[in-house]
Amino acid sequence: MPTNIPALKSEALYGGLGKLTMYLGIDIGGTNIHFALVDRKGEIINEKSVPTAKKVEKVLQLLVTEIKNFLPYRIKGVGIAVAGLVNQKKGILYFSPNLSWKNVYLIQRISKYLPNLKMVLENDANAAAWGAYNAVAKKKVKNLICLTLGTGLGSGIVLNGELYRGANGTAGEIGHMTLYPDGLRCPCGNYGCVERYIGANYLVKQVVGQIRRKEHTMLTGMVVNDLKKITPELITEAANRGDKLAQQVWQSMGKNLGIILASVINFLNPEMVVFTGGISGAKKFFLPALEETIKKRAFPEIRKKVKLVISEKSLGVIGAALLTQNTDI
Amino acid sequence: MPTNIPALKSEALYGGLGKLTMYLGIDIGGTNIHFALVDRKGEIINEKSVPTAKKVEKVLQLLVTEIKNFLPYRIKGVGIAVAGLVNQKKGILYFSPNLSWKNVYLIQRISKYLPNLKMVLENDANAAAWGAYNAVAKKKVKNLICLTLGTGLGSGIVLNGELYRGANGTAGEIGHMTLYPDGLRCPCGNYGCVERYIGANYLVKQVVGQIRRKEHTMLTGMVVNDLKKITPELITEAANRGDKLAQQVWQSMGKNLGIILASVINFLNPEMVVFTGGISGAKKFFLPALEETIKKRAFPEIRKKVKLVISEKSLGVIGAALLTQNTDI
Repeated sequence: MPTNIPALKSEALYGGLGKLTMYLGIDIGGTNIHFALVDRKGEIINEKSVPTAKKVEKVLQLLVTEIKNFLPYRIKGVGIAVAGLVNQKKGILYFSPNLSWKNVYLIQRISKYLPNLKMVLENDANAAAWGAYNAVAKKKVKNLICLTLGTGLGSGIVLNGELYRGANGTAGEIGHMTLYPDGLRCPCGNYGCVERYIGANYLVKQVVGQIRRKEHTMLTGMVVNDLKKITPELITEAANRGDKLAQQVWQSMGKNLGIILASVINFLNPEMVVFTGGISGAKKFFLPALEETIKKRAFPEIRKKVKLVISEKSLGVIGAALLTQNTDI
Repeated sequence: MPTNIPALKSEALYGGLGKLTMYLGIDIGGTNIHFALVDRKGEIINEKSVPTAKKVEKVLQLLVTEIKNFLPYRIKGVGIAVAGLVNQKKGILYFSPNLSWKNVYLIQRISKYLPNLKMVLENDANAAAWGAYNAVAKKKVKNLICLTLGTGLGSGIVLNGELYRGANGTAGEIGHMTLYPDGLRCPCGNYGCVERYIGANYLVKQVVGQIRRKEHTMLTGMVVNDLKKITPELITEAANRGDKLAQQVWQSMGKNLGIILASVINFLNPEMVVFTGGISGAKKFFLPALEETIKKRAFPEIRKKVKLVISEKSLGVIGAALLTQNTDI
């Protein structure tokens, strides 16, 4: 066994290397690349993270090396998730805002070094939705929306039991639906986009704005007046310690999320909405406002049918891995 | 040939009765019931309309009688479209706001008298979307939204080449997505619903409101000061005769339609949007504002991919008829 293979958490349970069919999921983020060995049901058996190099060449080399390390496992396929516009069929990453990459023939370039391995490329929000469908819903629903709360808000959609990609593969851009038609200008050109009112950027901007308006909050002390250091994590910490302003900002985000979600569930009538993005710690601050808003704004027979779930699983890698199960890709 | 069979428009073309496979579509509206004999491609071969009776019993009797009249044609199935909440699998109409009917076991009750005929029941907006997919898009796109402009705004959705119904069969309630979060109260309980800003009710209310604010319009004269007589058709007529207020009201509706449509196409990334509801006469008044708004608000790569089509076909009956082609129903 090569020394750089990550050890299985519970190798005995799986009968040692190579006895069980597994899938490798890779999520290329702006900061880290996350690798996860996933079983056919979407359970993570083993995982590791490495920092994301800046240059494409370096990242591609690293992917090949790391994938090779996982080969002693019986891997049926490798799924790669990345933020940005991808051509899923051709394995091309057209553009990634996080990584500043353009037109990378990702699958083609890696496959050269790993010729007999099935590989797929997918947008990270789509991959997360597929992960939610498999590992959260356990395929027991047919229609599901997976919302990723990060800097802004992304989403992936599973309909009739299939990942729904749309005409360009960009379906799910919930962050650029209009929340307030006469609202703030968005870099995309529109006014009042959801992303201006939901996500990490919104939380931080709201807090900083309130501090500048001389509102009291313990966050000022927590960052020793260096407002650039305010993060969603610190806002949650302050909210947990009873800070009213921090709590209000989370509530106001919950309300905004409720408005757009009520619209989307009235329109798509899904059975489940899965939230992801490491937000369960702030649940008690945004969830009541979110639920109250949905109750006010969505049809009773529709909202009663939809289950809201907050998941802490790494749905992007799980979904990417399991996308290789589908033979039609 | 029984005397009450509607004569074929071009019987010779189709080789006489019974030579060609056809489908019967029925659209039960609040005022009329529309019957249409449809070929497998969605062309209407023959059609008739009868007034809608008030009582369920009367309507069911009438349906049986009229369907029997069509039987000499080689009909493979009968599809019935109706506004309201339906259980498509069981053929039950749970509730129809137009007809004030509740829990009508429609297919079961008609089938008793027509035992060997395949029948399906579908919500009218879903049926129209299926009609648009077959008779407008000719199945050349996979993802399509069909918008029905009437009193308010309805929609049906075809995704991955399938009619998308959602968890309760109510998917497509675009009229109750939120357009202005702090806007007008809607009977559904929400504030700022799309239906308050788009559709016949909106047009008429806007005009009446402006007249009460002493704005000049030829519509006042056209209805001899009886403002209750103002209709969307009259507003279009006035707009065609150069009336500025009538033109502005259509434009403002075009802008509202553009806002919600930009949101929906950013979210679902469809290949086609089909408008129906007898609005092509007003096209020149609302379409420029609609297109300009979409250009401002939707992603360029998404809006360039989507084709907007205004159709004057009776998509509800066509879609209802063709839904019986699917063997899985």
